[in-house]
This record gives sequence, structure tokens and C-alpha cells, in this order.
Amino acid sequence: MSQELSADALAELTRCFVDRISVAPATCLQHANSLSIVPAEAARAVVWPETIEEIQNIVEMAERYRFALVPFGAGTSLEGHVNAPRGGVCIDMSRMNSVRAVNAEDMDCDVEAGVTRQQLASHLRDTGMFFPVDPGAEQATLGGMAATRASGTTTVRYGSMRDNVLGLTAVMADGSIVETGSRARKSAAGYDLTRLLIGSEGTLGIITSLRLRLHPVPESKVAVVAHFPSVKFACDAAISSLALGLGLARVELLDATSMRAVNKSSKLALPEMPSLFFELHGSLASTRDDALDLRRTMSEFGAEAISVSSTESERDTLWAARHNCFWAICEAYPGRTPVVTDVCVPVSKLAECVDATINDCQHYGLVAPIVGHVGDGNFHAVIMVDKSNQRDVKSLDLVMDRLIERALAADGTCTGEHGIGQGKMAALAREAGRSLAVMRQIKSALDPLAIFNPGKIF
Amino acid sequence: MSQELSADALAELTRCFVDRISVAPATCLQHANSLSIVPAEAARAVVWPETIEEIQNIVEMAERYRFALVPFGAGTSLEGHVNAPRGGVCIDMSRMNSVRAVNAEDMDCDVEAGVTRQQLASHLRDTGMFFPVDPGAEQATLGGMAATRASGTTTVRYGSMRDNVLGLTAVMADGSIVETGSRARKSAAGYDLTRLLIGSEGTLGIITSLRLRLHPVPESKVAVVAHFPSVKFACDAAISSLALGLGLARVELLDATSMRAVNKSSKLALPEMPSLFFELHGSLASTRDDALDLRRTMSEFGAEAISVSSTESERDTLWAARHNCFWAICEAYPGRTPVVTDVCVPVSKLAECVDATINDCQHYGLVAPIVGHVGDGNFHAVIMVDKSNQRDVKSLDLVMDRLIERALAADGTCTGEHGIGQGKMAALAREAGRSLAVMRQIKSALDPLAIFNPGKIF
Repeated sequence: MSQELSADALAELTRCFVDRISVAPATCLQHANSLSIVPAEAARAVVWPETIEEIQNIVEMAERYRFALVPFGAGTSLEGHVNAPRGGVCIDMSRMNSVRAVNAEDMDCDVEAGVTRQQLASHLRDTGMFFPVDPGAEQATLGGMAATRASGTTTVRYGSMRDNVLGLTAVMADGSIVETGSRARKSAAGYDLTRLLIGSEGTLGIITSLRLRLHPVPESKVAVVAHFPSVKFACDAAISSLALGLGLARVELLDATSMRAVNKSSKLALPEMPSLFFELHGSLASTRDDALDLRRTMSEFGAEAISVSSTESERDTLWAARHNCFWAICEAYPGRTPVVTDVCVPVSKLAECVDATINDCQHYGLVAPIVGHVGDGNFHAVIMVDKSNQRDVKSLDLVMDRLIERALAADGTCTGEHGIGQGKMAALAREAGRSLAVMRQIKSALDPLAIFNPGKIF
Repeated sequence: MSQELSADALAELTRCFVDRISVAPATCLQHANSLSIVPAEAARAVVWPETIEEIQNIVEMAERYRFALVPFGAGTSLEGHVNAPRGGVCIDMSRMNSVRAVNAEDMDCDVEAGVTRQQLASHLRDTGMFFPVDPGAEQATLGGMAATRASGTTTVRYGSMRDNVLGLTAVMADGSIVETGSRARKSAAGYDLTRLLIGSEGTLGIITSLRLRLHPVPESKVAVVAHFPSVKFACDAAISSLALGLGLARVELLDATSMRAVNKSSKLALPEMPSLFFELHGSLASTRDDALDLRRTMSEFGAEAISVSSTESERDTLWAARHNCFWAICEAYPGRTPVVTDVCVPVSKLAECVDATINDCQHYGLVAPIVGHVGDGNFHAVIMVDKSNQRDVKSLDLVMDRLIERALAADGTCTGEHGIGQGKMAALAREAGRSLAVMRQIKSALDPLAIFNPGKIF
């Protein structure tokens, strides 16, 4: 089914956007998905709106001419979310990038959807506050992060986008502007439309601005790194650490293969064993005490070479290594294409699930370092595929399929943070069962002509 | 519009439920709302299902005969949620009260909707874990708490029901059983149906079971109480304490009138001034340090007679006084009926909003002690009304109306935790604006015959 832009529609759009519209194939392709195994599918045109009224205008045209709309933040999503399989128009939100207000007393802020994480972080420097959700991509926009329900390394303490958006403004399919939530910290007033739009991947409305919750910068941050004889020992140690009630802000697992890549890339000499990277947030006294408790618990689980880093430079070296892990893995396997996927399971099933995935990849001859936000039971496999090798490509499909099967069998989910997009539609159908019909009913009610990001989620 | 039970429908229901159905007017009235200013409206019959299949059965009958269904937990809601304005059947969930699983490693549990807070707390005793959401009513059911998006004194640290339900099972209007979420801590798989059903007040589906997140019992709890020359000083002190990044698990405000009632009822001699009750959770070391920081900050805001209680008995005395505050207020004004309402505003607007409410009540000759979860900007006015006095009754309406107006003008919400029910439908329409239409679209899509709790929210 095509929802392509007609010549008339394009003419009308061009009259509206003048020099803020492009039909250049290279530009359109740039706006299609790039970091994914899902092949890129370009829209017919890209527009750069600057106001919510302009977005209302595009939506009204899309309804009238029946063309598809694909909202675009920074294009860092991984499952084909910004592809345009039915043609239509890509709405690039990058010009709606104003930080409209920061309220120190309420610890909240009001940003347009195109503001990036990095931009907000710079804006908040020296305020004593920060926005905690960290999906890895610095240039990700907050609108895109909301649309995909982004989370990341700090979710174990601060939550995901779900928990850190107080309310938002969106343009709905009928052209109406809807404001959800308020500036209050909580509300019991009607259906939770904020949470419905968060994670809807642009299929229910176009998010134009957000009210975000901010957090006080902790007085002290301490990094603790520990290395284990097996993934199982590392996961058991992580589970025990979670029950201690410490100020754990990050709990990351790197498997032995990832550690090898990190050592090589960051010129470190860390033990090439399954490792946990922790970050503790709190007061000077509490992080010091927590670090002692953590060290003791790690030892009980057979950890070696536990290091505690409370200075900023030591901590930064370690966390830079963790953050660069993906690129380190890419460097370590030149000529191969990284295919990143994620699942999330109850923490008690994590070790089993990670080990089975490592074994499965080995069995099929694939290299797949594993990195996990283990505090949440979430892990990524970075499957390094030689795309010219047919056996590799076939194995990839098999391994991904079995990974999802394993996650669902463990009462988990087919994706903890990457979302459905085009890449995991079949997986969602397997996972959601009857609730998929409820999602479809909502989609049909709110976007009856299916103009918003068609061909995604369902 | 009546959605009453026909004789045929009643006969069929009676064949199914035999001795687990009652049409006794007293029983039906008991199940209608009691703790609210909203007049009670009884259903025609009450049924006590024991399985999800029985609920599917009732829903199927309700669709066929077009009668209304009103889910009932413990009847502790305050806005007429369990009234049956269009007749029909009340579904009492109290027999579906099994704690089906507690998973220590994953810190989660699986409960039927009729399990009460108290029952779960007893079940978890000695596990080192607890379920944190505390709306005050011990006998509230977890299903009811989810349906009303309950929160309470500990929300400032642990969140509300929104944050502590991993997933749930519900029977939808078409009789299908839907499972939302998974046992994973987070997910990016499709629309957030869990959060859509939480706070839907029984209007979208009947929640039959829940997977809840548990938390480690903190090593140490410390209570800090401080008294201030004005509400403004107390609120400013509370705002400053929130920015310190301490382990604040409770931040409660009692105004001078509430303190007088508490002193009298609990035989205490606390200063009868606007007061903050804090509870700190953490390690022994961190709560000790946090208490020192807190004491210092409170002094800077002119606090008097700051007391720090780290022993269980001292702490319990103080918190018992806070928890009994509502009953203490009722005792202090015999012959008057308490009308409890709540709003929630950004914390920076709290002092102004509380003071204006106190003045407004005084102006209209109403006594209205104020108690607030000020860490969230949420407060309750307990308006003590002489129902035989027409002026009181008229003033009540005016004061409530102006309170809502004030909360909305402050970018807040008409209810932080009590919900909409019947009592705040007009307020929701004022607050939600265009988003009310989106809520209606969802309601029509998921419950086209409006069998689920009709006459609520909209």
C-alpha cells in the first residue's frame, strides 16, 4: 500500500515550506534508517517545521491527500523506525530545538522535541541538575527518545523516558493539539496519555514538546569494576547488589569478548573476563560506604581485581571504555557489519539467557559480544556479520529468532529499549498475543487513515 | 440512561453464581461509595467471582444484556468510583485474593487483584522486601490501587502504582484476556497498555491480577520533624531538601490546624505550627548523614524544635500521629462531615496554593485542615462541613471550585491521587481540554457499549 505524495500535495507543501523542504534523493535517504540491519527506505520529501502550527498544517494536508508522515529526531533508532516504507514525508524536528524553560525549584524543564540530549546537558551545566536518561547516542533528540521510550545505563536508578516525562504536547491525526499531564509531579486525572504516547514510535501523534523531570547532581559518584570467572557469577553478584538497597546508578555487564575489544581499543589492561561496571551516586559518606559493601559482595561471588575509582579522571577512563564498547567491537572485527539487538528478561534468568546466547552464536560461527544493563535484566548482542557470507546472514536470522524465543520463554520482552519499528513486528506479535488487538484498536481510533508512521509496530 | 439488570440477566447470573450473588439492598448499598461527598448509588446486584473465567463470563453477559459493570476492591476511593449511577452489577474482587508468587531474586510478585495492601505486607514480612505504595487505607486492594493510580506518602521516593506495576492481566469488553507487560523490568515493545489501564478507574477493562515490583527494606529509617513559622517557610524548606539528593522517602506537611488535632488525639505536645514530617531511608551511615544535612537545612528556614528519631518506637509514635491525622481531624470537629479533596501543583507553587486555600476556607467560615505529600506538591484539604447548615454546603462547593481553579492556574492537576470518579468529571473537562476527546476516543474503541463503570471520568 502506497501513501505517496502526489504532485499536488508536493506543490502545496512546497508553497508552505519554500526553502525548508527537500526532495533531493540523497537528503531523503540520509533521513531513512542507517544504523540498522533493516534496509533503508527513503521518504519522497523532507520538511523542517519550526512551529507547532506548521506541524498542524502538514498533518491536515496528510489527512486531505492521504500521504504518510514519518517523524524524525536524529535517526539513531535501530529498528527502522524512521524508514518510509509507504513513501510520504519525513518531518525533521531539528529546527524545533528550543529549551523553553528550566525551573530550578520544581526541578523540571520544558523543551521542544528537537532538543538533543547533549544540548540539554550543556544547558543544565552549573545548575546542579541533570536529565538522567542516557541511551548512548549523545545527539538523540528528546522527542525521539520519548517516542521510542528510550532508556539506558542509568535506568536502574532514574528510570526511563516513561518515568522522566511529566507531560507532553502532540499533534494528533485530526490536527488537534493535545497537552497531556501537567507540571505537577503526579496526577490521577484521567487516562495516562503521556505514557500512551511515550513508546508509540510516532504512530499515534507527533510529539512537539516535553516537560521533563530533572534530578539533583549527586554530591559524589564512585565507579566500581569487578571481574568474574563466569557470566553466571557476574549476574548472581549483580542480583545480590540490587537487593542491598545501595545507590546504584549503573550496573553494566561486559562479556569476555567485549572486554577484549575494549582493552584493545582503549589501551587498557583489564582482565578479559565477564565484568561488572557499577556507578554509585549519593553523598560522599554513602557512596564510600556503598563501595565497601559492594566490594565485599563482589568478593563473595569470586570477583577478581576489584577496583574502586572515586576521582573523576579514573572514573571517566573506565566509563569511556564502557561507552566506547560498541565502536571498540566494530574496530575489532573489520569488514563485518554490526547488527545490534536487545532483549530484556527478569534478572534471575539473565545469566542463563546470556550464556545460551553466547553458546548459540558460537554454534553458528557468529561473533557476538554481549553488553548488558544488567540492573534491569536488559542486554544487547552486537552480532558481527560478514554480509558477503550467505551462511552468516542465514545464521543471523536464526540466532535473532532464537534469542527472542529465549527471552519470551523467560517471561521477558523482545526488546528492552530498541523498540519495534519494522525490525521486530513479528516478535511483538509473538510477545503481545491478545494485547496486540488492543493496540490496533487504539491505533485505528486515533489515526483512522494511518497517516502516522505506517508500517511500524503492526 | 439506565444499563440496569433485566430479570432474564439476573436469572442467568444467579444460575452461574448461586450463593455468590446478592441482591440484598443493604449489601448493594454497602458496595456503593461511602467515604465521599458524592451520594451513594447502589448496583442492583453484587457478585463475588473466584476465577478470571467467571469474570469473562460476566463480561460476556453484560455485553449481551447491556448491563453496567462496576468493579469493586475495598471501596476506599473518594470520588464515587464504586457508585452504580446506571444500575447494573457490582463485581466484588475480594475472593480473588491469592498471592501467587514472590520472586526474591527478581524482587517482584504476582498477586490477584483482590489482595489487600495489608495482606501483601504480611506475606512479605521477613523476606527483606516490601511493596512501597501507601495510599493510607490499609485494606485497599492492589487491583483497586492500580485502577485508581494510587500513590501516597512514599511516592516521593518509590513512585506511585504507575511506577510499581510491571504488568497486569485484564478482561476487556470483548471478553478477551489481555496480559500487558512482562516480568522484565522495562520494555519498549509496543504501546504501554499497563499504564493505560492503571488509572482508568475500571472504565476500560477489569484488572484481575498484577505483577508488582518490590523494593529492599532499607537498613535504616530515620524520622525528622520540624516546625515552621509559616506554610511558606515549611514549603521552601521542603523544596530545598528535595534538591539535596538525600534518601527522602516521605516529606509530609501538616498545617497548624492539623497539628492541633493531632496533638489532642495522640496526646502529644508538638508545636502547633506548620510542620514537616520527613522519613529518610538508606544505610545506617547515609541516613545519619542525611539527617544532619536535613537538620541544618531546616534550621536555615527558621525551623524550631527539630527532632530526629532513629529508634523504631520514636519513629512509630510520630508516624502514627501523621497517619491518624484524618481521624484526629474528624474527632476534633464532632457533628461535622469530612469532605476530603486533593490537588497537586508544581512544588514552587505549593506554599501559595496552600495559603490561599487556608484563607479561602477561613473567608467562607469553613474549617479545613491541610495535610500534604509536599515532596510531590500534592495536598489534601479535609473540609469539615456541617451538612445541616445550608451556608456551609454552598461554601463547600465554592471553595472546592476555587481550589481546582487555583491548582490549574498553577500548572497543576485537579487531583494528584484521588482520581476523577463522579466527583471531578467537570474538573477533568476543565483540565484536560482537547485531550479529553482523545480519552473518549480510546474509551469508545475499547468499550463501545460502555459496560465498564459508566458515568465515571466522562
